[in-house]
Amino acid sequence: MKKTIFIALLSGFFFFVTQAQTKELTLEDAVLGYYKGLYPERLQNLQWADDVDEFMYRTDSALVVKTPDGKIVEQYAAGFFKAHVPVENIPWIEGFSSRFWLFSKDSVYYWLARDGQQLHQVRLPSAARNEDVHFQTKRVAYTIGNNLYLADEKHTKINITANDDPNIVSGQAIARQEFGIYKGTFWSPSGKYLAFYVKDESDVEEYPLVDVTQTPAQLKSIKYPMNGRGSEEPGVGVYDVEKDTTIYLQLFDKAGKYHYVTNLTWDDNEQYIYLAELNRDQNHMWFNQYDRQTGKFVKTLFEETNPKWVQPLHPAYFIPGTGKFVWLSQKDGFWNLYLYHRSGKFLGQLTSNKWVAKDVIGFDKTGEYVYFIGTGEDPREMHFFKLKIKTGKQKQLTKTAGTHYVSLSPSGKYFLDQLTSVEVPYKACVKSTENKKFKTSLFSAPDPLKDYKVRKPEFFTMKGVNTDILYGRIIKPYDFDPNKKYPVLLYVYGGPNVQLVKNKWLADASLWMFWLANQGYIVYSVDNHGSDNRGFAFESVIFRRLGVVEAKDQMLGVAYMKTLPYVDPERFAVHGWSFGGYMTLTLMTDYPEVFNVGVAGGPVTDWKWYEVMYGERYMDTYQTNPEGFKRTSILNKIDNLQGKLLTIHGYMDDVVVPQHNIALHDAAIAKGVYMDFYLYPRAKHNVYGKRRVHLLKKLLNFIIKNNRP
Amino acid sequence: MKKTIFIALLSGFFFFVTQAQTKELTLEDAVLGYYKGLYPERLQNLQWADDVDEFMYRTDSALVVKTPDGKIVEQYAAGFFKAHVPVENIPWIEGFSSRFWLFSKDSVYYWLARDGQQLHQVRLPSAARNEDVHFQTKRVAYTIGNNLYLADEKHTKINITANDDPNIVSGQAIARQEFGIYKGTFWSPSGKYLAFYVKDESDVEEYPLVDVTQTPAQLKSIKYPMNGRGSEEPGVGVYDVEKDTTIYLQLFDKAGKYHYVTNLTWDDNEQYIYLAELNRDQNHMWFNQYDRQTGKFVKTLFEETNPKWVQPLHPAYFIPGTGKFVWLSQKDGFWNLYLYHRSGKFLGQLTSNKWVAKDVIGFDKTGEYVYFIGTGEDPREMHFFKLKIKTGKQKQLTKTAGTHYVSLSPSGKYFLDQLTSVEVPYKACVKSTENKKFKTSLFSAPDPLKDYKVRKPEFFTMKGVNTDILYGRIIKPYDFDPNKKYPVLLYVYGGPNVQLVKNKWLADASLWMFWLANQGYIVYSVDNHGSDNRGFAFESVIFRRLGVVEAKDQMLGVAYMKTLPYVDPERFAVHGWSFGGYMTLTLMTDYPEVFNVGVAGGPVTDWKWYEVMYGERYMDTYQTNPEGFKRTSILNKIDNLQGKLLTIHGYMDDVVVPQHNIALHDAAIAKGVYMDFYLYPRAKHNVYGKRRVHLLKKLLNFIIKNNRP
Repeated sequence: MKKTIFIALLSGFFFFVTQAQTKELTLEDAVLGYYKGLYPERLQNLQWADDVDEFMYRTDSALVVKTPDGKIVEQYAAGFFKAHVPVENIPWIEGFSSRFWLFSKDSVYYWLARDGQQLHQVRLPSAARNEDVHFQTKRVAYTIGNNLYLADEKHTKINITANDDPNIVSGQAIARQEFGIYKGTFWSPSGKYLAFYVKDESDVEEYPLVDVTQTPAQLKSIKYPMNGRGSEEPGVGVYDVEKDTTIYLQLFDKAGKYHYVTNLTWDDNEQYIYLAELNRDQNHMWFNQYDRQTGKFVKTLFEETNPKWVQPLHPAYFIPGTGKFVWLSQKDGFWNLYLYHRSGKFLGQLTSNKWVAKDVIGFDKTGEYVYFIGTGEDPREMHFFKLKIKTGKQKQLTKTAGTHYVSLSPSGKYFLDQLTSVEVPYKACVKSTENKKFKTSLFSAPDPLKDYKVRKPEFFTMKGVNTDILYGRIIKPYDFDPNKKYPVLLYVYGGPNVQLVKNKWLADASLWMFWLANQGYIVYSVDNHGSDNRGFAFESVIFRRLGVVEAKDQMLGVAYMKTLPYVDPERFAVHGWSFGGYMTLTLMTDYPEVFNVGVAGGPVTDWKWYEVMYGERYMDTYQTNPEGFKRTSILNKIDNLQGKLLTIHGYMDDVVVPQHNIALHDAAIAKGVYMDFYLYPRAKHNVYGKRRVHLLKKLLNFIIKNNRP
Repeated sequence: MKKTIFIALLSGFFFFVTQAQTKELTLEDAVLGYYKGLYPERLQNLQWADDVDEFMYRTDSALVVKTPDGKIVEQYAAGFFKAHVPVENIPWIEGFSSRFWLFSKDSVYYWLARDGQQLHQVRLPSAARNEDVHFQTKRVAYTIGNNLYLADEKHTKINITANDDPNIVSGQAIARQEFGIYKGTFWSPSGKYLAFYVKDESDVEEYPLVDVTQTPAQLKSIKYPMNGRGSEEPGVGVYDVEKDTTIYLQLFDKAGKYHYVTNLTWDDNEQYIYLAELNRDQNHMWFNQYDRQTGKFVKTLFEETNPKWVQPLHPAYFIPGTGKFVWLSQKDGFWNLYLYHRSGKFLGQLTSNKWVAKDVIGFDKTGEYVYFIGTGEDPREMHFFKLKIKTGKQKQLTKTAGTHYVSLSPSGKYFLDQLTSVEVPYKACVKSTENKKFKTSLFSAPDPLKDYKVRKPEFFTMKGVNTDILYGRIIKPYDFDPNKKYPVLLYVYGGPNVQLVKNKWLADASLWMFWLANQGYIVYSVDNHGSDNRGFAFESVIFRRLGVVEAKDQMLGVAYMKTLPYVDPERFAVHGWSFGGYMTLTLMTDYPEVFNVGVAGGPVTDWKWYEVMYGERYMDTYQTNPEGFKRTSILNKIDNLQGKLLTIHGYMDDVVVPQHNIALHDAAIAKGVYMDFYLYPRAKHNVYGKRRVHLLKKLLNFIIKNNRP
């Protein structure tokens, strides 16, 4: 103890510091932290088998299979795989069963028997993308260019589609990956049929991106549907593998030409396909049943309307063999579970929680229970729940505060529970869905920052607009001195479907925030109205005027921060990316006297230049909501600017196209407004790797240099 | 006197200042000076008649015709024109004779008799561009899109060419306006024939410019031949107006497919057309005669080769009725005059000056004398010379130091002399080519800055590389105090064919330099080796390594400046545009310790991205001069950077395409180099109007802020 005090006095700085934390966190460490071991270790490739209650993970030298009680079933070294297939190391396992390992290497998919006695191979052309494997039948659907193909053990390339027109794209995600659509192919349970999305982009305009790394600079046009303009026309094909024929669903016409065809679901009887279809205005959803064989529309099972928006994000979850399915909807204000029969009969609301269910994880064998995840009472957390379908009795299976990532064993009796929280870097165990005392600990990661001068982040709560509770996160310098006055950075996102403040390791903050804090800064964030996991009322006040209420919340956040004795009320900065860039610009122009400096990365500046799917949900179109567009366009108010402002863009950004940023400067120049601009020529919507180190040095130095009144 | 001293003591600043200069020059004044009356008044629309020794000019309210002795022949008010044609005011006169005024308005060309008794009209489609009028025959050649047309009193649109292929462009300047080519149509003297350039751009690649002022941003591709890559193929057509037929010259094949066809000249007998043809490598020129009627190559009259380059910039000047012509060449080291006969016979070198002739202005009626302009002994000046062809006796007709703009009367007896110099804002008079005492003063402009706090610029000379004399210009603060130490801005251009330091009003400096000087700055420029009007040896040391010798000269300039007691040797900044942007970057990276800050506007950063015509003349190609390209590419040495650097680009720049700048930042980011960047979204290679005010505030503030060690 004496020695500690002595050191502290000598250094003059490090009171309250244990001796162990001696390493300075550099900005380069912070940005490249993942590669430098500064994020918690996790179990790699952890997953359940397909058909038995066994799970696997890999270590540096072995692949281990265990039973839920932690007993090792098998253990494999690289030699096992190298003996059978041309790999160097243990491959990344894409699935396994009691009999096979599934993995791929150099465009070949391998099913290698766990005893090494059998090997099946499916060979794909090297240009194949968007591969979708059916494990049992050993079939792989994939795309090349805009067409869809199939490979199996005997064939490398079977044409499913053959469109010459590059505007017709098959087998890929549609609707720009909104509505939970992240892929374009859907195997039927048995693998006999493959449903797939088609989009016709003939009416979608092109946006000209330019690649300056070639000589001369090359045009890289992308199809980009801008607000209120021509959009995609969707379609769904169904390929019958045995017959080698494709039919197309005769889509519902009430939803309009440019409607959305979301959350494709196979009935487990394979006779029906379901689509959550949404009009372009996104305020009317029809859940429709189609005949797999004829492609004909059968019926609408139910509809959902909302004066603001309906946002289907989940498929139907069929309870095997029952004809019943669970549907997730936020129509009562929170995402809750509902039960339907394929006949269309509504069988009741299963949950009525005042918090957000996030997804269905599975059922038990008998279909008596449904397992799902949701925030529970604290929206910063994520927990696992078991619900008895008949009674509605709900049980929280994870108790420890934090964020639990779970997966259910094939039998439904066990689940893998991976936990992270501000207190726990990472911890994995197996638990029982039936016996709360059952627990097999697998791994507990050490604090990867234990040697570094990094102070734990803190949560806070405050009242936002309508006196709703808002959640915040504050990061202080390692050598925080409550008697000092610190300058402040507000790191903001603020947009829908995203939440910054979570009970995860480091409170989900980025390491660069801790670096900045150590330069003598307070770095904080507040999840304003509109952000995720708070229910529809909280999330939808943003409708038709994105940024307005969000900014009011942030101003309450500023007021709150100014009540803290260690905050210098004259030295506020703000930074965000994407919607956070838009928020930065909104704050700098709607409240110009508050922030000395702002850095907006990849910002939206006028919603008329943003994509149809996301933008029209929240803003409607520039034709139907001219006042809202006018009010929220940064171009119309850039002359309010008082602080220093740097805007940054990835020059290949295909999400928020560079026009947002460049045209804002055109307006600024015309109005005699002085701002700074920078671009990352190779970057899309984000900047990665060593270029991200450059980005953060650039932007944080800009903040540090200019954050004074 | 006492009073002046009293004021000076009170203010503490304004010694040596006369009381009259009290207005502060704002930066906005400086940039928009032309519109604010801060540049000298000039006689407007001043010109000789076509056929008699009368000249005209216009005042605010009248058009005046005078004889050389200053006697008013006629005077017209707007009413005269309004009475005959639909104009509001006195039109801009495009030519006149003893009988007619020629002017145009809203796509109609008018020949209005000076007595108002006759009116001829030639009507053009509104899409017409590149109009070329034959005054006597009242014919107008013009282009729409890539084709060439003719209009006369009876026809609005006669097709001369009809190419569907947009790669074939007729009737427009070719070779990107290098080699003195600034137009694409050439009337024969009588107006019976029209020769025109054709270029086939099939092999020229496209460069993608992007217009962000439209929604979505629109691609604006331009044809841009980059160094060492596919270029234009030239052609020449000859249209016979009476026969309505076109033949094409069967171009000389020794010069190669992508050669240059420059300085098209009609023989005054109209039987021959002459072309100065140059190989792509630009080191071999053939002066070729073609038969107008058959299009056949007749013969090569003479050739010129040079291990560095040959740059024909002038047509042949036929001495009317003699079959002889004057040719300008710098083959003896300076632009001098040579005499040839159309037979190909060389008749002698007419001048052997050790200074630069700039152009032939005309001949007297008998062809005894040739009149030309040239720098005379001081390369910063421009004078008028009379040369007796037979004897080579040369006489300087303008004596006053400065820059004389002259035009010869139809008889050759008189010339209009418009003078500007550091001492003379603008002065116009008529003089005689025969009688040196004859002088009719027309106008002498007052000093437009007489009320402003602006100090006269000063010239200086110094020794550059090889101890050659270099000319410089220095601008000091209005309240310059030789006992102070001032920070310094080097304003640099440095590229070929351009000269910054001239004996013109303000020494040809821009007004913003005086604004900056008044902020307590020394602003200077030095014309380094390679710059214009110094002869081939001086200008061509730059060959194959642009920027290297130029930068050495500039470093000698810096050393010179540091010898001045009032210069702060620790506070040097550098700024330039275009080649001057390239020089800024070269200086900042080759001599990184010298300048605290640089601003490079529209810079070349690697010659492989610059156009074929200019770039290959000086650098050859990236294939044939890899070492030179490597040595001079800023991308290869950007990591030398120590000072603060801002690079700026017009986003629609079709001269130095934006790739130069953006790709430089890509390299900087990869190397961890921090620079600033800005773009002007609507600007091409220059920024004009109020956006230029923005530009200069931005860049000068950057300099002021960062010019400290």
